[in-house]
Amino acid sequence: MSKLIVQKYGGSSVANVKKINQVAERIVSYARKKNEIVVVVSAMGDTTNELISLAKEINPQPSEREMDMLISTGEQISSSLLAMALHKKNYDAISFTGSQVGIITDVYHTKARILNIETKRIKDELQKAKIVIIAGFQGLSTHQEITTLGRGGSDLSAVALACALGADVCEICTDVEGVYTADPRIVKEAKKISYITFDEMLELASRGAQVMHKRAVEVAKKFNIPLHVRSSFSKKEGTIIMKKTSYIEEPIVRGIAFTEDEAKITVCNLPDKPGVAALIFNELAQNRINVDMIVQNVSHRKITDISFTVPKTNLLKTIKVSKRIAERIGAEEVLIDEDVTKVSIVGVGMKSYHGVAASCFSVLAENKINIEMISTSEISISCILRKKDGKKALKALHKEFELDKIKSRS
Amino acid sequence: MSKLIVQKYGGSSVANVKKINQVAERIVSYARKKNEIVVVVSAMGDTTNELISLAKEINPQPSEREMDMLISTGEQISSSLLAMALHKKNYDAISFTGSQVGIITDVYHTKARILNIETKRIKDELQKAKIVIIAGFQGLSTHQEITTLGRGGSDLSAVALACALGADVCEICTDVEGVYTADPRIVKEAKKISYITFDEMLELASRGAQVMHKRAVEVAKKFNIPLHVRSSFSKKEGTIIMKKTSYIEEPIVRGIAFTEDEAKITVCNLPDKPGVAALIFNELAQNRINVDMIVQNVSHRKITDISFTVPKTNLLKTIKVSKRIAERIGAEEVLIDEDVTKVSIVGVGMKSYHGVAASCFSVLAENKINIEMISTSEISISCILRKKDGKKALKALHKEFELDKIKSRS
Repeated sequence: MSKLIVQKYGGSSVANVKKINQVAERIVSYARKKNEIVVVVSAMGDTTNELISLAKEINPQPSEREMDMLISTGEQISSSLLAMALHKKNYDAISFTGSQVGIITDVYHTKARILNIETKRIKDELQKAKIVIIAGFQGLSTHQEITTLGRGGSDLSAVALACALGADVCEICTDVEGVYTADPRIVKEAKKISYITFDEMLELASRGAQVMHKRAVEVAKKFNIPLHVRSSFSKKEGTIIMKKTSYIEEPIVRGIAFTEDEAKITVCNLPDKPGVAALIFNELAQNRINVDMIVQNVSHRKITDISFTVPKTNLLKTIKVSKRIAERIGAEEVLIDEDVTKVSIVGVGMKSYHGVAASCFSVLAENKINIEMISTSEISISCILRKKDGKKALKALHKEFELDKIKSRS
Repeated sequence: MSKLIVQKYGGSSVANVKKINQVAERIVSYARKKNEIVVVVSAMGDTTNELISLAKEINPQPSEREMDMLISTGEQISSSLLAMALHKKNYDAISFTGSQVGIITDVYHTKARILNIETKRIKDELQKAKIVIIAGFQGLSTHQEITTLGRGGSDLSAVALACALGADVCEICTDVEGVYTADPRIVKEAKKISYITFDEMLELASRGAQVMHKRAVEVAKKFNIPLHVRSSFSKKEGTIIMKKTSYIEEPIVRGIAFTEDEAKITVCNLPDKPGVAALIFNELAQNRINVDMIVQNVSHRKITDISFTVPKTNLLKTIKVSKRIAERIGAEEVLIDEDVTKVSIVGVGMKSYHGVAASCFSVLAENKINIEMISTSEISISCILRKKDGKKALKALHKEFELDKIKSRS
């Protein structure tokens, strides 16, 4: 039976003419089966970064509105080229910008949120049996301006389109074969995960797994759109991200994320009284700094320390803001530690199993790895470690939870 | 008094970051005087050609609709970068695509014609004292598709905007200092022309002078918008193109154009009866081939030859079409000659002076240059010569009509 399929191809999948032709061939293999196909593409390879560099060379603090005018061209280029590649294979295709197709967003340039998608133009073209190609990562604001959606924007475009069109499938086609139990570049025994829940994927994504961005998974979860993360250049089944997996023998831990992109900040010797933590984190939030883990020490004589982690990209701003607050609240000093790593184990099974945390900490202890911060959620445990211990910890945990023994679909 | 100024900057004027900054500085020098400024930009340097090559690598016959999607990004990039450069100099600026600003065209992709310009958004931004930057060469069709305007498209955008906005001045800023009496790369005595009429400029442009494209001059003439062609990187006055010049001692010949971009086709021994020429040129027109000069030989025994010239870019198509017609009408053969050059002398003064043609032919004869085809209009005489004679003819004619002795404005 014919289906409505939304497919997203990332930048590395359309990085050059050869790859664009391969992607076109892949799309054709679906079109031959009389499916209706909507394709979302990212900009070719490094185009976006090159445009950003060019902008910063001209103006180190470019206007966000003009930035969107500039970088939205990247996806327009790849979309039109993909349409031409499909024409060459005698398939009818038509490319659109986000503005043309009515992907309506709010007015926050470079990080806009999708408000609505007008599907008429897409449906009209599908009706004419055309393959519809849409520039990802971009939209049109309610002020009639070109906007971009920020990191993971093309994934988000695909998910939102799948939702608006009521697609049967939303495929995220990328340069890896799916979601793995750990980064296969570090843990060579890492296995591809066949099925994973939205919540687990969200945890993995926010803990450092780069295969999919959190925002797209959030939207997919909200509207219950199953996602299929798979390779752009192989027919192998990838990872299906869905509401609930129904495998009988689900492993307790589903995956382990790993990141070196965060830094640890400690505000030392601050008065332990109500409102102090609120003051710090409100101020950080107002400065749009995303705080991840937070740990407050046990208080001694009404004096305590607060440690938290932030993305290294926000580090300079965080230091500035933290020092200002520290002075205001009479804290002694602000310590910055960039030499840390974060390892997180994730799995919905965890909450109903005792001893996962204990196993985790034991394994690290056996390997003489010191844990500096711990944070737990319903479905994850994250530990901040010395950077030098990160990869050793990742491998040890992967083995402990027997992730090397799970079976992937072909 | 403050003026509304439309300025167009060509691709070589915004080819890199340094030049974009220089153009920004030039714009600022006008903005400081409280002028209202609308800037039209071309794509950076060779961007358009690079995009076209990329497209042809994917599909040797790319769809024109997708071609427009692709190449319109070039001007969007340069516009936004120029806006950023102006922001850096603390001037408020905003960039727009042709679609955003309502440059409405017909539906003929890659060669669209401007039908109308909705000026509201531009006027609103000028009202807010912003410098308005508009991506040249592009528009939005009545079918809501992105279109491009073909060769000389950015000049056309500028002229049409100047017209729609009722601008006081329309400057065409380019990599030369104005219009010259002949190509200064060939004739080193060539002089910059201070004033020239629309008609003369049209003749020069269609006879090979590359400084401005014919279509833009046609529109400027139609709406009587004086154009100032000048250097992007110097304060020198350039050439003003206007309805009527009022110099007392106008030279008879104003400029000499030269081109090697045409080929000569001869259809030999065809029956000299009514309708044959119409048949040939109708068929060529239907194939969108632009014929320039046409000469029909004096008939002998009801048999004649017809020669005409076409741009070399259309040569293959022309040969195909001509051979088909030749066969149909019983002509003997079709001769192709690419080894020709065309030299044209232009000047509104010519029509009221006797002997210009005679002087022209005498000079060529004195230099032993054979004339193969001649065509004259009210204000021009064009000759097709052997390619090897072209530059010699250009120099001799430039001297004969004393173009090396005219005085330019500073």
